[in-house]
Amino acid sequence: MTTGTAPQAPREGRGRVLTVAKIARLAGVSAPTVSRVLNGQTGVALETRQRVEAVLREHGYRRPGGASSIAVLELVFHALESLWALEIIRGVEKVAREHDLAVVLTEMQGRLTPGRAWTEQVLTRRPTGVIAVFSELTVAQQSQLATRSIPLVVLDPTGEPLHQTPSVGATNWNGGLAATRHLLDLGHRRIAMLSGPTEWPCCRARLDGYRAAMDAADVPLDPELVRISTLYVEGGLADGRALLRLPDPPTAIFTANDLQALGVYEAARLDGVRIPEELSVVGFDDLSFTRWSGPPMTTVRQPLERMGATAARMIIELAAGRPLEQHRVELATELVVRESTAAPSEC
Amino acid sequence: MTTGTAPQAPREGRGRVLTVAKIARLAGVSAPTVSRVLNGQTGVALETRQRVEAVLREHGYRRPGGASSIAVLELVFHALESLWALEIIRGVEKVAREHDLAVVLTEMQGRLTPGRAWTEQVLTRRPTGVIAVFSELTVAQQSQLATRSIPLVVLDPTGEPLHQTPSVGATNWNGGLAATRHLLDLGHRRIAMLSGPTEWPCCRARLDGYRAAMDAADVPLDPELVRISTLYVEGGLADGRALLRLPDPPTAIFTANDLQALGVYEAARLDGVRIPEELSVVGFDDLSFTRWSGPPMTTVRQPLERMGATAARMIIELAAGRPLEQHRVELATELVVRESTAAPSEC
Repeated sequence: MTTGTAPQAPREGRGRVLTVAKIARLAGVSAPTVSRVLNGQTGVALETRQRVEAVLREHGYRRPGGASSIAVLELVFHALESLWALEIIRGVEKVAREHDLAVVLTEMQGRLTPGRAWTEQVLTRRPTGVIAVFSELTVAQQSQLATRSIPLVVLDPTGEPLHQTPSVGATNWNGGLAATRHLLDLGHRRIAMLSGPTEWPCCRARLDGYRAAMDAADVPLDPELVRISTLYVEGGLADGRALLRLPDPPTAIFTANDLQALGVYEAARLDGVRIPEELSVVGFDDLSFTRWSGPPMTTVRQPLERMGATAARMIIELAAGRPLEQHRVELATELVVRESTAAPSEC
Repeated sequence: MTTGTAPQAPREGRGRVLTVAKIARLAGVSAPTVSRVLNGQTGVALETRQRVEAVLREHGYRRPGGASSIAVLELVFHALESLWALEIIRGVEKVAREHDLAVVLTEMQGRLTPGRAWTEQVLTRRPTGVIAVFSELTVAQQSQLATRSIPLVVLDPTGEPLHQTPSVGATNWNGGLAATRHLLDLGHRRIAMLSGPTEWPCCRARLDGYRAAMDAADVPLDPELVRISTLYVEGGLADGRALLRLPDPPTAIFTANDLQALGVYEAARLDGVRIPEELSVVGFDDLSFTRWSGPPMTTVRQPLERMGATAARMIIELAAGRPLEQHRVELATELVVRESTAAPSEC
């Protein structure tokens, strides 16, 4: 071990120092054990770790104010596979740079909850804060961050929509409503929705926006026209084909993201269905390639870069001990009309 | 300052310790000054800093072997604006994760050389290594890394192609050759090339591959058909329009990257030129959206994720003091034929 991992003198309350020795005494463990827990190192029994955590929690332990040699902002993604991720990274990186924070990027290869190794590494790095994108930390992980006063902000949370963790998202319900209303205004009635997994609040809200627009226009919902799919091109392709092969197929499809919409494009191409003449398609996200897809895509814009920047600013506020103006921020979505939507054909 | 920034005892040679005190004596400066230089902090006069650096260089200073509390791999991009960047990040992140390294991401907002603030931050973080993507460090920056035994690998270097820094790229010349040969095989003779800035070796090599294929087929080069453009959609749009409006326009355009090709798509669409019936287009990179562009794009695939992973593995070898098998790695490109290329029309 080098001096870099040596525990720093923790402070208690205003000026009073909650030393490692005192924590050790209160928890009935040795001082090196406390250091190991503070630094997120292995080799401490679960029960012992929990005892130390309890003391930290009870006595309101705060990390020392002096900057660590590396001021780090942790950014965790469930997956790095679309421009979606890149736009968020840019937003976070921009704000972090302004505050001299290094952005540490972790990909969880599609998993929604980071593993134990990640937690240990993060606690060792003592970051200024953690931004988790489209993922969920366990209660234990949240508590481990909280006891070390490491703020956590979730971007597009996947779990319980009314959770207590500060979060950033977009107005998904409004986006679903605007997209569907646009199709209704063009004269469509058989409008299908390809949804993502509805246990995720962002997907559920988009679907509910679609339903609300249909209800408001007094168009009955045909359950055959609503399909739950994956948020990838492959999902859009498979479920798009299934929709196009119905005895009475839809004249328009609203999808839960742009990748699904590209899959619907491909399904239409394979079946010789022309967009927008025979089928209107609306995506969600407005990733840059949608402008250049064939045809340019009508989609609902999410301000992803601004969402990343907002999450980073929330971390900086929280790390400075300032209360957040809003616990849950929803940035506005916006319908962008291009060439994949048109009035339904007469026949 | 916390213990985290305290200088660690540097070692000299095998087992002999080159202490901060000894460095200070040799350089004729105080020990705290040496610490400041080792930690990349400000407040040291240029001349003093250079004297300390000279001592470090002369005595073969190596960072202490004991891991720092945060093992970090620095990844620097000139810009984070395309899937191109994301695929490289994924490759780097994957290898870094396997080696318990945190990836710190920096964007230079389009600049090719990082600024002084970046250098100071990086030296403070004492990373395992630095990967610079499509960018160039100054001689002074390279020397500051070298004196601290921080390895540097450049991905797609922008400067002198025969430089000494270890680097990773793709076989750009072969890619240019394969793309142009494909168009020639289809029967095209008026083949244009939209190149990126030719002072960048990757762009120059693609252009030279195009020229070599034309020469080998005994097709005279028409200088009007070669244009230097920017590597963005806007460049492809402007220069694509200029090419299409020539009195004797090309029947095919090979572009230096996929974004330029999308710009050419848009130029063709605006002028009512159909792809591939009236114009064939070949891109470069094979970013995922090209599969879904209208029409799906013929392009030259660069293994970007593998390029990122290779650069990260080189850093790990260098940091462990092992010599590289190859100083300059070029991974193979591959032509991917889709639907944007066809034989030229008869008329």
